[in-house]
Amino acid sequence: MPTERIAALVFDVFGTVVDWREGVARNAAAFLQRHPGARQDAYAFADAWRARYSPAMEEVRSGRRPFTRLDQLHRENLEAVLPEFGITPAAVPEEELQWLNRAWHRLEPWPDSVEGLSRLKRRCVIAPLSNGNFSLLLNLAKYAGLPWDAIMGAELAQAYKPMPQAYLRTAALLDLPPQRVCLVAAHNGDLAAARRCGFKTAFIPRPREFGPNQQTDLMAEQDWDWVAKSLVELAGMLGA
Amino acid sequence: MPTERIAALVFDVFGTVVDWREGVARNAAAFLQRHPGARQDAYAFADAWRARYSPAMEEVRSGRRPFTRLDQLHRENLEAVLPEFGITPAAVPEEELQWLNRAWHRLEPWPDSVEGLSRLKRRCVIAPLSNGNFSLLLNLAKYAGLPWDAIMGAELAQAYKPMPQAYLRTAALLDLPPQRVCLVAAHNGDLAAARRCGFKTAFIPRPREFGPNQQTDLMAEQDWDWVAKSLVELAGMLGA
Repeated sequence: MPTERIAALVFDVFGTVVDWREGVARNAAAFLQRHPGARQDAYAFADAWRARYSPAMEEVRSGRRPFTRLDQLHRENLEAVLPEFGITPAAVPEEELQWLNRAWHRLEPWPDSVEGLSRLKRRCVIAPLSNGNFSLLLNLAKYAGLPWDAIMGAELAQAYKPMPQAYLRTAALLDLPPQRVCLVAAHNGDLAAARRCGFKTAFIPRPREFGPNQQTDLMAEQDWDWVAKSLVELAGMLGA
Repeated sequence: MPTERIAALVFDVFGTVVDWREGVARNAAAFLQRHPGARQDAYAFADAWRARYSPAMEEVRSGRRPFTRLDQLHRENLEAVLPEFGITPAAVPEEELQWLNRAWHRLEPWPDSVEGLSRLKRRCVIAPLSNGNFSLLLNLAKYAGLPWDAIMGAELAQAYKPMPQAYLRTAALLDLPPQRVCLVAAHNGDLAAARRCGFKTAFIPRPREFGPNQQTDLMAEQDWDWVAKSLVELAGMLGA
């Protein structure tokens, strides 16, 4: 493994570094309890909200819509999901909707994330390469104690993963050739897109990201440059 | 002072957080010693190089030239300065020119900078808002141990300070109204431009930035929101 040549590790965040499903469900539960008439299933709420994530970005990726921040897409998706749980968005105070929409800014890291990142940071640059917008990723880092060197991702690239521009513009901002940047992700599709751009790849399976019945991304589907069970294990592999 | 409403502190870097003159002179001295025929005055070299900084950016600010990274402007300025010291750029190995050009990535912080930033970081978001390009600021942070939450500045804004877009696009990326962002700088002109955009302002005089005979920016020229002798003193004022 060409570990000596990696100058930056960039990370998928939702699912790879933080547990979005537990975090969104926790926030949704508090919200639903304030609306006793609503369907009280916070995990179903998290899953329904997340199910609209990729289709919303696809509108942007396809060019049918100009680049739009994830906070805005989340908000539109939230207003679409609320009626499925018996809630009329217009009847909810704006402040409460904003609070719930920012659940994505308040997610817990996986147990190995902060230690793993802290060790990897001693060895090279670490930054998110996420579809989350800049302020979301920044607030999330402050909330979860993620010790990034910089905040990067779709908003800076003005392109959502897995569009090649999302990876290539990130490498360009770092002033590094793609082969000196490694994407760390729990999703084979993300890694495949990064590899096509010349990035190195590290797979960290997160078999509970989608809950107890997860069927996808349970194992490496290509010969990724590194495969580790946690960010702490990855740090060990990279000598950090 | 409305300290409770500041959500992010953004910092000028060259002169405010790091001592560019000493650092560039240190690197230039090592370079000049490898060229015994050259004029051996490293401080004069640093000053001559820096003198071309603002005019080079003015080409971009005026619209005569598309946005160009500071690393590239520094390189062009370096090739213009070398003959003044008796060196023909084309006769210097490319690797050596690149090393010297990256002197701006290897500058020491002022003695109070790391402690001050570390304390301020506990209270709110801290990030550079510098004319340095993204990778320069990132490398500098790793070199000098600057604990930024994010890297921001002219390259992300695609506008050099003191153009209003440099400040306004930074606030927009933070998803904050300008009045919740405070610029910290050693330069009255930078603060005046930030204030015109609605930013709060903090002045930290750095009376030796330009060497022992500095005549400018020795004192506050407006009633800035805060004036402190160091970043540690500013942290105390902000209760951090």
